[in-house]
Order: sequence, then C-alpha cells, then structure tokens
Amino acid sequence: MTGGAPAGFESAFGAAEHAERLARFRAFIERKGIDVAVIADPANMHWLTGYDGWSFYVPQAVVVPVDGPALWWGRGMDAAGARRTIPTGVAEIMGYDDGHVHNTGSPATVDLARRLRGLGLGAAIVGVELDAHYWTARLQEVLAREMPSAIFRDVTGAVNRLRAVKSPAEVALMRKAARLVERMHAVIRNVARPGVPKHEVIAAAVAEGIRGADGVWGDYPAIVPMAPSGPDAAAPHLTWNDAPIPSGAPTFFEIAGVCRRYHCPQSRTLCFGAVPARYRKAEAAAHAAIEAGLSAARPGATAAEVAAAVLAAIRAHGFEKDSRVGYGVG
Amino acid sequence: MTGGAPAGFESAFGAAEHAERLARFRAFIERKGIDVAVIADPANMHWLTGYDGWSFYVPQAVVVPVDGPALWWGRGMDAAGARRTIPTGVAEIMGYDDGHVHNTGSPATVDLARRLRGLGLGAAIVGVELDAHYWTARLQEVLAREMPSAIFRDVTGAVNRLRAVKSPAEVALMRKAARLVERMHAVIRNVARPGVPKHEVIAAAVAEGIRGADGVWGDYPAIVPMAPSGPDAAAPHLTWNDAPIPSGAPTFFEIAGVCRRYHCPQSRTLCFGAVPARYRKAEAAAHAAIEAGLSAARPGATAAEVAAAVLAAIRAHGFEKDSRVGYGVG
Repeated sequence: MTGGAPAGFESAFGAAEHAERLARFRAFIERKGIDVAVIADPANMHWLTGYDGWSFYVPQAVVVPVDGPALWWGRGMDAAGARRTIPTGVAEIMGYDDGHVHNTGSPATVDLARRLRGLGLGAAIVGVELDAHYWTARLQEVLAREMPSAIFRDVTGAVNRLRAVKSPAEVALMRKAARLVERMHAVIRNVARPGVPKHEVIAAAVAEGIRGADGVWGDYPAIVPMAPSGPDAAAPHLTWNDAPIPSGAPTFFEIAGVCRRYHCPQSRTLCFGAVPARYRKAEAAAHAAIEAGLSAARPGATAAEVAAAVLAAIRAHGFEKDSRVGYGVG
Repeated sequence: MTGGAPAGFESAFGAAEHAERLARFRAFIERKGIDVAVIADPANMHWLTGYDGWSFYVPQAVVVPVDGPALWWGRGMDAAGARRTIPTGVAEIMGYDDGHVHNTGSPATVDLARRLRGLGLGAAIVGVELDAHYWTARLQEVLAREMPSAIFRDVTGAVNRLRAVKSPAEVALMRKAARLVERMHAVIRNVARPGVPKHEVIAAAVAEGIRGADGVWGDYPAIVPMAPSGPDAAAPHLTWNDAPIPSGAPTFFEIAGVCRRYHCPQSRTLCFGAVPARYRKAEAAAHAAIEAGLSAARPGATAAEVAAAVLAAIRAHGFEKDSRVGYGVG
C-alpha cells in the first residue's frame, strides 16, 4: 500500500527523491551489518519518507529493513496522516492501538516488537537512534525486553549525516525560508521601539513568518522566538514576555523562517538610544567573527576549521566564547 | 545559591508555592523509598522549581534529594536562565560543559553521574522519569553505566499526578488562557472564508494569541495549530498549509491559548456553504457527547466515568470513537 497525496499535502519532494534517500540509508545500514533500522527522530522520518504530522509526542518510527520497502509505524489515528503525506516507497502503514498511549506498563514498543517479530526480525541486528528525542529510556527498555534475541546498535546521527548534504530541492526551500526570516526581521525593525512590549513585536514577526511572501507560505518553526534584553540576554534560551523594549540596552531577536519544515534561522540584535561602548566592541567582534567564518567556509574545509576561525576572531577582539560555534540550518 | 528574579522573568507563582510543590513531591519519593529523583520532563521541572527556558533539546533535569534542597542541572549556558527564572528553594545551579552536547560518546549524563556521586548518591535509589520526552535511551544507559551501584526506579507520571490538582494561582492562569483561545477563535471566524488560504487564517489567529487581551499577553503553545479540511480532517495531526478553505466541507481549527505556559486548548469546526447531512449528524453527536461529559464530570467521578458517558452519547448517535476521550489542559 502506498500513501495517497491529496491536494495540499503532497510531499515537497516526490517519490523519486524519497526513494533515493532511502536507498542511501539502506546502503549505510548494509555497510554496518544492520538488518533493520528503527528511525524515530521526527525530522529523519520526514526526510526518509515524507511523513509529516505533529504526532511525535507519541511513539512512532519509520522501520527500514536492509532489503525491503520501509514501513511506517505509529499511533492508529495517525495512520490516516501517514497515508496522506507519504508519497510512495513505504510498504505498509502500521497503526497501534490507543491503549498503548501514556501506558508505561505497556508502551507502544510492545506493539513494535510484535510486528518486528512478525516480519521475521525477532533475532535481527536492529539499528535504533538511542539518543533521539522522544525515543525514551522506557521505550527502548521494553523493545529490548520483548525482543530478547535481537541485537541493538546505536544509529544516532546516521540519517542526520546523510541529511547534511542537501539536494537542489532542499536548497530551494532553504532559500525561500531565508526570504521569510528577512521579512520577519524587517517587521521587527518596524515595530520595535523603546517601551513597546515584546510580545507585540513577536506577534507581528510570527504572523509575518506564517503569512509569508512572494507566493511562499510560512510553516511552523522547530523553536520559538527568543527576545531577551540586557543582562537577561546572557541567558540564551529565554523567550518573550510583555516587558517593554529597553533603551540603552540590547535585545536580541533569535527567530527562524520556515518553508515546508526547512528552516533558515537568524539572530539579530537591536539597541535603541545610547549604545554602551562595550556593545559596540561586541558588535565589531561579531562582525569580524562572521567574516572570518565565511572566509573559512570553503570546499574541503571542515566545520572544526570554520569554528576555529570564528573563535580566533572573537578572541582577537578581546572576548572569549566557551560554547560551540554553529547552528542547525535546513 | 538561590536564583534571582529580574523584571519580566519572575516566577508566575513565587517561592512559597514552589516550596510547597517540592515538599509534596519529596513526601512522594519518601513513601516510595527513593533517595533522589531526577526530573527531566520540562513541564515538571518548571512546576517544581519555576525553571523556564527553551532548552529541553539538550539534557537537563531538576535533582530532588529526599532530604535536601533541589538542584538544577543543565547545559552551562542555560545556568544563566536558571538563575533568572528559579525564584528560590534550589540549592545549586549545576551547568555542564558544552563538550557533552550532541556527543553520543560522552552524553551529559556522564556529568550528572559524577555530580550525583559527589553528593554521596552513587549507591542511592534513584527515581528517573524513564518515559519522559528528551530523556533518551542513551542518556539513561550511560547514567546507569556510570553509577553501577545505584538502583533506578521509574517515577514517570509522579509529578504529573501532583500537577493534576491545580492551585488557585494555576486556575487563574488557565482562565486567562481560556480568554485568549476564545479571542483566537473569534479571529478565525472573522478571517476564514471559502477560498482564503489557511496560512492567512492561522497567521491572524496566532498573532492574536500572542498579542493577548485585557492585560494578558500570550505565550507560546506546546503544540501548533491544526487546520485540516474534509477527508484530511480524518488525520488528526496535520498542520496548516496554503490550501484554500473549502465550501461544503468542514475544517477544524485545533488551537490553544497560553498564559505563562498554562494552556487552554479548544478545537472548533467551521463549514461554509451547504453543510452535508452527515456533518450535521456528527455535530449533533459532538454536542450530545460534550453535554454528557459535562454532566458526568462531578466531584467524586473518575475520568473513566466521564469518558464512558461521552462514548455512550457518541454511540447513541450512530458513531463509534475508538480512541481515548480527553485532552491535556493546564
């Protein structure tokens, strides 16, 4: 059975691109001697098959045997969404009973183990993303208990590494997302003034990001806008509130434009009124670091080399950054 | 060391309410014979301590010894956010090195195990939420490996059950969130017309939810709006796109108003043009089910009794619902 593709929910890529992605991943597990992979990271499920639903708060996975079509596995009520969003290349849509939902005594991997055994994979070498969000300790413990003859291998990051090289179709979506984040920042610059409550700025920016532009509609982001000011900006993951935008202290707006799940994040800092000298110095360091990173980002360079160039430029301006360089994009 | 509470990030509840919550949870783990609990569910961390940051994509937890103050543990750069959002009652803010981030070889629970051993808890009975999102199989495997003398117990759902009984301060936030979702639905009714692209309706509704009303600003939701139409509405977790709102087929708008992280979700269905008879029948069944549920929801009734009343009303109208009844609220 292949999934349908009703108006509005067709895959952004089509069956051929998903088939090629699945083939590359199958080649990886074959090299590793893995019989079947259970991929539960939502973005990796989407990349492999096109499956797209806000359903990852319950256990779900794409099951990829080394020598057969992939299978979608998830909550029974989400099978309808799988049929609508998976263009092809998936052998079966397997939905489990609602009785497994929030049932720590019988979590859904009881059902998954039963199905894997039914596929003759009870004693297989099974690749699992052991460090994927939503693949909880309990889910894995029960899967292993229910498949005592299976051998489990960690494939965390394997699909992600394949995803790192973008197809032309993916790059096109990222360029559209870039246009959206530019417009969101333009709205922020228009709306933000000292005294304006932050939530009003964020409301305008988020609406612009969804409304989109030039025939491109905006999708939901994987992370919400951040907008801390002054000393609070030392805490990188505080979100918005109704505090007024200050004068004489910076506020950073860390946001993302999103096109069909593909992200282009960008953080920009605004400072109204008299800008303290230390922020001018930090601005110069940030500009130099960005230029140094762009210069180092050349074919053949490693990410570590780009990071080293960025950190060196920051250090040369008298600052120290003790956290990693870089940002998930795409 | 206690956290500060700068303008705009003060806890919605204050130190006394968090202290009372921690005391109730400590009484629970004492009854269970647990020496220390590691609580990693973001909402449970927030409920216990007030910690509030969009940082759960890296390992983090609140550590609650049975006989001492709680500790916050997370990524080093998020320690600043912990100091800003935790009002009091927390003994120490413990930040780990960035080298553990996305490091499957040395995930952050290597650091957590070292700290627990340092607290004399290396051979303790440790309660862990083994089925919490973000507490991955790998994190638990490494924690157990690094603490071979410890005994691990599953405390999934323990904090959630305490949270189920809301304080007056929490109910007040939920009532505010209810006003916000009402306004969002009013905006949807104003903007939605046959032919209007869905993303434009969602942009308006989301902006209204953040802009808020009557002095209440809107926070980000734990789930994004859903807006499928017609046959797609059989798939419960499809989000929006740029498809035009149809005539003669229903579209449901499943959204939430949010006040200081407290949610009031509400799904409403719009149908323009000629409403097919089967949808009129479904509407009558839904109304009857809601009334039956409200009548059954009386002091002393169990959730199962309420669910049975809802399902019976649906069945009496000739429909069958094979999934659970109910909705996370609060």
